[in-house]
Amino acid sequence: MKVVKDPVHGYILLDKFALGLIDTPEVQRLRRIRQLGLSNFVYPGANHTRFEHSLGTLHLVDMLLNTLSIDDEERDEVRAAALLHDIGHGPFSHSTEGILERYTGKNHDDVGDLIIGEIADVLETQSIDPSHISKLILGETPLGQLINSELDADRMDYLVRDAYYTGVAYGVIDYVRLIYEMEFREELLVVREGGLQAAESLLISRFLMHPTVYFHHVSRIGEAMLSHATEALIETGLDPNVLKRMDDSELMATLRSTKGYPRDIAERMDRRRLFKRAIYLGKDSVDIERVLEFQNQYKKIESEMAREAGLPGGYVLLDIPKRLEIAEGRSRILIKDEMKHLDEVSQLVRALVDAQWDNWKLGVYTPEEHRAKVEKVARNYLVK
Amino acid sequence: MKVVKDPVHGYILLDKFALGLIDTPEVQRLRRIRQLGLSNFVYPGANHTRFEHSLGTLHLVDMLLNTLSIDDEERDEVRAAALLHDIGHGPFSHSTEGILERYTGKNHDDVGDLIIGEIADVLETQSIDPSHISKLILGETPLGQLINSELDADRMDYLVRDAYYTGVAYGVIDYVRLIYEMEFREELLVVREGGLQAAESLLISRFLMHPTVYFHHVSRIGEAMLSHATEALIETGLDPNVLKRMDDSELMATLRSTKGYPRDIAERMDRRRLFKRAIYLGKDSVDIERVLEFQNQYKKIESEMAREAGLPGGYVLLDIPKRLEIAEGRSRILIKDEMKHLDEVSQLVRALVDAQWDNWKLGVYTPEEHRAKVEKVARNYLVK
Amino acid sequence: MKVVKDPVHGYILLDKFALGLIDTPEVQRLRRIRQLGLSNFVYPGANHTRFEHSLGTLHLVDMLLNTLSIDDEERDEVRAAALLHDIGHGPFSHSTEGILERYTGKNHDDVGDLIIGEIADVLETQSIDPSHISKLILGETPLGQLINSELDADRMDYLVRDAYYTGVAYGVIDYVRLIYEMEFREELLVVREGGLQAAESLLISRFLMHPTVYFHHVSRIGEAMLSHATEALIETGLDPNVLKRMDDSELMATLRSTKGYPRDIAERMDRRRLFKRAIYLGKDSVDIERVLEFQNQYKKIESEMAREAGLPGGYVLLDIPKRLEIAEGRSRILIKDEMKHLDEVSQLVRALVDAQWDNWKLGVYTPEEHRAKVEKVARNYLVK
Amino acid sequence: MKVVKDPVHGYILLDKFALGLIDTPEVQRLRRIRQLGLSNFVYPGANHTRFEHSLGTLHLVDMLLNTLSIDDEERDEVRAAALLHDIGHGPFSHSTEGILERYTGKNHDDVGDLIIGEIADVLETQSIDPSHISKLILGETPLGQLINSELDADRMDYLVRDAYYTGVAYGVIDYVRLIYEMEFREELLVVREGGLQAAESLLISRFLMHPTVYFHHVSRIGEAMLSHATEALIETGLDPNVLKRMDDSELMATLRSTKGYPRDIAERMDRRRLFKRAIYLGKDSVDIERVLEFQNQYKKIESEMAREAGLPGGYVLLDIPKRLEIAEGRSRILIKDEMKHLDEVSQLVRALVDAQWDNWKLGVYTPEEHRAKVEKVARNYLVK
Repeated sequence: MKVVKDPVHGYILLDKFALGLIDTPEVQRLRRIRQLGLSNFVYPGANHTRFEHSLGTLHLVDMLLNTLSIDDEERDEVRAAALLHDIGHGPFSHSTEGILERYTGKNHDDVGDLIIGEIADVLETQSIDPSHISKLILGETPLGQLINSELDADRMDYLVRDAYYTGVAYGVIDYVRLIYEMEFREELLVVREGGLQAAESLLISRFLMHPTVYFHHVSRIGEAMLSHATEALIETGLDPNVLKRMDDSELMATLRSTKGYPRDIAERMDRRRLFKRAIYLGKDSVDIERVLEFQNQYKKIESEMAREAGLPGGYVLLDIPKRLEIAEGRSRILIKDEMKHLDEVSQLVRALVDAQWDNWKLGVYTPEEHRAKVEKVARNYLVK
Repeated sequence: MKVVKDPVHGYILLDKFALGLIDTPEVQRLRRIRQLGLSNFVYPGANHTRFEHSLGTLHLVDMLLNTLSIDDEERDEVRAAALLHDIGHGPFSHSTEGILERYTGKNHDDVGDLIIGEIADVLETQSIDPSHISKLILGETPLGQLINSELDADRMDYLVRDAYYTGVAYGVIDYVRLIYEMEFREELLVVREGGLQAAESLLISRFLMHPTVYFHHVSRIGEAMLSHATEALIETGLDPNVLKRMDDSELMATLRSTKGYPRDIAERMDRRRLFKRAIYLGKDSVDIERVLEFQNQYKKIESEMAREAGLPGGYVLLDIPKRLEIAEGRSRILIKDEMKHLDEVSQLVRALVDAQWDNWKLGVYTPEEHRAKVEKVARNYLVK
Repeated sequence: MKVVKDPVHGYILLDKFALGLIDTPEVQRLRRIRQLGLSNFVYPGANHTRFEHSLGTLHLVDMLLNTLSIDDEERDEVRAAALLHDIGHGPFSHSTEGILERYTGKNHDDVGDLIIGEIADVLETQSIDPSHISKLILGETPLGQLINSELDADRMDYLVRDAYYTGVAYGVIDYVRLIYEMEFREELLVVREGGLQAAESLLISRFLMHPTVYFHHVSRIGEAMLSHATEALIETGLDPNVLKRMDDSELMATLRSTKGYPRDIAERMDRRRLFKRAIYLGKDSVDIERVLEFQNQYKKIESEMAREAGLPGGYVLLDIPKRLEIAEGRSRILIKDEMKHLDEVSQLVRALVDAQWDNWKLGVYTPEEHRAKVEKVARNYLVK
Repeated sequence: MKVVKDPVHGYILLDKFALGLIDTPEVQRLRRIRQLGLSNFVYPGANHTRFEHSLGTLHLVDMLLNTLSIDDEERDEVRAAALLHDIGHGPFSHSTEGILERYTGKNHDDVGDLIIGEIADVLETQSIDPSHISKLILGETPLGQLINSELDADRMDYLVRDAYYTGVAYGVIDYVRLIYEMEFREELLVVREGGLQAAESLLISRFLMHPTVYFHHVSRIGEAMLSHATEALIETGLDPNVLKRMDDSELMATLRSTKGYPRDIAERMDRRRLFKRAIYLGKDSVDIERVLEFQNQYKKIESEMAREAGLPGGYVLLDIPKRLEIAEGRSRILIKDEMKHLDEVSQLVRALVDAQWDNWKLGVYTPEEHRAKVEKVARNYLVK
């Protein structure tokens, strides 16, 4: 048994099996992947990594396994899934997620091909089938709900952790209460009535963290810049499967070592000379259905807008976020022993699910000196 | 200058004027009035007092006065109002509020007749007219909004403070941000757009604290018991204006020193042998308009129910809370330099204002051994 | 199982047995005894009670019992001792401790005669012999070290809790680490080498809390006033064994209901019109051995000083604290599997034990207007 | 005015001048330098940067300037020095400090040659002479004591910040009180008597953080490995003045891009396959004077030990820390208006200064499989 100090949860206990998994290169790499990508442009304290988040998820999963009285043989599978659930992330976490999905055809939860080598060897010591772990991480089996469902250990940890390191007040969740009030009913993870408020608090936290942290325009600008520069690397030969295994500093080193666009972007990031918003529109200012379709052809629209504004490619970035959803609304709660969806029971939750859309914002970003002309061009394409 | 350590805000600075007011008997008495009345039956840490809350309110008012650049001559008036705003509370704060209003015809904010004697002497040193202070506490003048309005220093302090001492996670408000984002527009205190989320967080906090703390059924039962025992004292001769000046321990000593009902209630409270819920109904289970009218004739209905259940008066308590309102929804926010109400701007706030009603609960309380029969009787009167 | 929210430890779990003990009048009375007596004159937040401290001690004892793998049959005895260890305290905790010891001949740890009635009934349900509990609370049996020894659950809880409610930064102890590093060796509770720093941190905390909180002169003045007023009650007929069962508000009510000295003191306390220091001397300014002997004849010296100063009895108070000791220095630590005393191993601990004496201060207190003349008189008696 | 959220201090206010300095490449580079070098091998949360520490130092300096009522024209100089005081650090902060000093002949506080270009331009806007800033950072002028002296804003910030991100409890300092109690006397920064305990708490914090964090053997092993690998780079041509301008990721990228020793070390670090302690000795086990002299010839001794153990160069690392000193003992305190050194006044401080030596430890590190034979060799060289 080893004990690791975590500023969020206090002491985290690690047994030999967990230590074995932690010592693999795939998990060690997470030490060098920032949890919040480029949010430290806005929140200077947000330098925490996927590694500590993975330890924190293990810690909460341990609490859940105790509360739920899960059998010993299944525990290690769930604990392994908790530790490994993020090894599919590329450098800078969500910042490279979109392009990795596009070029590899795989989501970061789809880690079957990474659970090999040393990881498989450690799993073997407990006679665990690697394919079980992949399924748990995808949330496909009942116990997978502890890791990947509407109210799971993953999001409990990241909300509290992101709040701790950004300093934002809104991440306060009564996760201890929430965990105490969980149980399985017909293979579904449910919250008992006594946990209703704790569940609501988790949704509220997500709701408030979205515009303040996760969708802060400065982070999104940084991410759009990084994503475009990385795409340029891929188009000039970088294997997306190599990219996926890089850490934050390897990607930055690669960008800096090029010439042209990627290097310019890397230098701007190093200097925090970020692009600015030429236009920034809520969903009521656009024809939302039409605009969401632009997501699939954003390169084409960017090129056109750049050409019209007299700028080279890569200097007009179009950022159209996905339709925002609060999946937690669909989590299950027991009211007088009857299973309901949280959004059936809680007027507040229904309201949050609706209000979430208010936070959706589309942006077009360009270097400061070109804002005026890009705004004019972008307006034609986007304003309804 | 003296410095006082406050666990919530750190150090609170007190100048000679503030110290003068603090040394008056009216403010010193607040040391002996618990902020949350009987909530320590549920939350053992909730023993904080109106005194420390008054210091905390002064501290936040000082921050507001700095942010708003208020003139020196007006500052001391507002600061005095912050320190004195709670001197009108009776023992156990809200637990005796209802009967004091009924028997004295005065609300606890109406403190004009208390700003005399030593307090008036201290105000005199700064040439302050006592009537100005009364008006500020009632929220009647523009600067009164800092103490008594939809988003004031009073509620910022108590939400954070109540959360600190109960241990409930939900009191986290970004009050520093909220204060930084406030200004006066045409004599109205408004929040700038950058403070929208901080304002929302205050409402969310109130929304979650309500059922968890302020309306917890165990506190309400304790308060109903105390309120009825105190009413019995008044009806056997206690002057309500003497009651109003008592502290918590004087009221308890008086109850214990009687015979009959008040003493029995005091003993039950000392032993935590509280009444239990015979019935507990949400607003959908009752004819709400009819039931709210019962508030004015609760003694009569209680007597009838007791008689039908074969119990002496005072052992069937009817607790009908007021219509719940979240006044904060009407606070003002500047959106693109235009003044709006918060509930116009924020879908979340509208939802909270609506959902608040879900927390309304009516209760009938009686000693444990009489629950069954009282339930039967109460059902006839209350269930629709 | 019931769960109680504690602001210090989070959730505290209570089983039926613990709830049974909590519901006894002896434990419920602790709700009305302030943990820090009159420290709220200095720290307005210090209104916490012996009740919540007893729950916190139970919580830490539960952690210790798990770490130490204690047998089931012994667990409930230790848990009962944790909950009951403070029922021997009089009103205002340490403020009445001295006179209670003098007039009843008993220390507050000596609770054998209180473990009767309802408490004995609850113990009976688990076939526990009440005399076992008394011994545990006195620290007489090996497991008693968890409650009453140099490094026990009692002081871990109160240091952290007193820091939380006063707001003083110095109570931060890594008690989780300390508990993890404890074991029994030959019936002695020892700390393993890995817990050395955590043990040092506990001593440092005590060392810093002493002058800042526990021996703050304003609290000591209040306590001297209360103690003398209470002694006057005893000398005019109050049974010390009745006094011992009072709560804070009963004692205050009794003082206020008298005439003469006790009432004057009660009024001064309600108004915070405290006596002031006429003289305040460190150990180097006095003949320490001679002065410590004065402890046994303080009434006589006080009378003489009052007479010389032309004041009535009770208006010159002599406060000579005991020799300060940091017992924790004698706690045991395992260094390379060899048992040592903490002060043998840690130069820091030796230094703290020595330096503690620097915090010893003797005071003579009197109403503000008499300071000058009392100082002159006191100087003759005390300065070397 | 811009406001930045800092998890440690809350909101930090930045005016145009501060923002101008922050936007320079020298300060932006600090975003990419971890404050605690390789401590995240031990404390996974310790990923905070010199950038946020610099903002925090500015924040505390602002508080100090207010308390001390410093003139406007001097304020901006001190504020600039606070923001710039760490720009002289190389990658991984203290990990490369030793070799940078050896190869460049300059300490990290000696930043005169870096205050040029954009920084000088920003200073020019306020007519500030760059050489004034250099002197302040070196602590050479009276106001330099706010940045670089025994009790300065720099160490107040880093102790609290390092505690926050490691999760170690020991960094709790009452810095607000300490700052409130500071003043200038004859150009010396002194603490008034009321700040004695706050000053002691800072020393205690340093004392406890040393073995727990700053000198944790795993960090020291990592640092020894990194330092030797970097030295190998210098000896094969890397310009130390280029090294000094690198950030953490550039140094790692450079190490990984080589062949041989530096690359092997980089891979070991990426995989957390660190060397282990072959020997680890306190000062009583060695001839301390002789051993401290080894610091100047460690390369030679390492080579000899490696040869004797049959290992290639770079695989036996000798780590001899400097004589530990707690400079804070020499800070000044006013006792009854007389200036004293803290260690004259406080027995505790004297004890800490002495006890600090107990934490001194010398280590010899080597890959795990060579520990036994290296231990044998090292013993001959080092054990007395």
